[in-house]
Amino acid sequence: MPVLYLIPVPVADDALHTLPARTIEIAQHLDTFIVERAKTARHFLKAAGIKRPLPEVEVTEIDDKDPIVASRALQSAFRSGKDVGLLSEAGCPGVADPGALVVEQAHQLGMRVQPLTGPSSILLALMAAGMNGQQFVFHGYLSPKRPELLRDLRRLEQAAERLDQTQIFIETPYRSKMVLEVALDALQPGTKFCIAQDITGANEMIRSLTIAQWKANPVSIQEKAPAVFLIYKKSGR
Amino acid sequence: MPVLYLIPVPVADDALHTLPARTIEIAQHLDTFIVERAKTARHFLKAAGIKRPLPEVEVTEIDDKDPIVASRALQSAFRSGKDVGLLSEAGCPGVADPGALVVEQAHQLGMRVQPLTGPSSILLALMAAGMNGQQFVFHGYLSPKRPELLRDLRRLEQAAERLDQTQIFIETPYRSKMVLEVALDALQPGTKFCIAQDITGANEMIRSLTIAQWKANPVSIQEKAPAVFLIYKKSGR
Repeated sequence: MPVLYLIPVPVADDALHTLPARTIEIAQHLDTFIVERAKTARHFLKAAGIKRPLPEVEVTEIDDKDPIVASRALQSAFRSGKDVGLLSEAGCPGVADPGALVVEQAHQLGMRVQPLTGPSSILLALMAAGMNGQQFVFHGYLSPKRPELLRDLRRLEQAAERLDQTQIFIETPYRSKMVLEVALDALQPGTKFCIAQDITGANEMIRSLTIAQWKANPVSIQEKAPAVFLIYKKSGR
Repeated sequence: MPVLYLIPVPVADDALHTLPARTIEIAQHLDTFIVERAKTARHFLKAAGIKRPLPEVEVTEIDDKDPIVASRALQSAFRSGKDVGLLSEAGCPGVADPGALVVEQAHQLGMRVQPLTGPSSILLALMAAGMNGQQFVFHGYLSPKRPELLRDLRRLEQAAERLDQTQIFIETPYRSKMVLEVALDALQPGTKFCIAQDITGANEMIRSLTIAQWKANPVSIQEKAPAVFLIYKKSGR
């Protein structure tokens, strides 16, 4: 039975060392890929030492607006009994990316779906935050506008306390500074707030403190590094 | 500045191949560990090829009822400028285990916290389920009793639809069969249900189908393999 391999890609530059040998080996020996972005996928496959010349490797991009293209590529691989690799632009395919659609279709075709181990900035941030790892929720992106973001953050703070859940979200790198400013404004002094920037990268910065501690020890955060944000508040704290 | 390394451990037997070389290397060169369970930690360190003789390696167990023991071990390592490794019984420390307390303390001491890449059955199951990877929630364990479990599953199904979130939970291996039975009973035909058993192991089984499809194609699932369960329902489906 053909297999759909879910192949994680490093989340920081030059961080191939975050992939297990087995994940790299499988990527090296496939010749059919469905990917979030063809350019970064080819770059990764080259760095990972793919065995075939790149022009002979079939790379199909997932088009959100026209999912039928990726769907046809998967079906045609399945019919010819070929294994397929699914690649995200960074991190784990199927998590905070459009790959889940391809995985869903693989199950419907009766393909075996095999997830491989690799870095996820969301999971690494959760590990490193020291919040509640027994119950947590990932929201993707919040509102990019200040007033709405402030409301969103307060809603998350309330949910954290009421449901005893770590609240996780992401934002585009250039908005990290704004998110920190709004968080310091929106959240209560005893609430825990974590920023994890450039995880596994050369400038990794993970800081998990209460809002009061953030205010007492201000730091300037990187403006261009990808970041994960986490909020937690124990009830009664 | 001393570092607290968060070191993932394989989630299946003989699955050291799921760890990146860098994760293994760091584990090999440390001599102070705080762990969920000493016995499995020593077993892992031996398999990973730790450089010192095991009797010279300091391994402190986290005692939920007496967290002061692990806390003292961390403080004393910090004072003597020593790096520490945090180990879960399986998977990623700080996620669905008691390790988060140690991570929280490390941040308060001003230690650097560095999460290393490795397998998490929760994340691997999410990747492989083909549900919503843009928004998801992890609940830990649900109720072990049938009537309460049935209610819990219906509540998760409603939340999945209302909040457009994949709902993830775990259960002890010997209850997997019961969970499947109750889920087939509790959930609506169009709801997606995934069981991921023995992830990364020799008997890995990942099945993600609608409840109607599960009923039309019954399978017997493994009674002794650790499992992750996922529920998703697109609104209007």
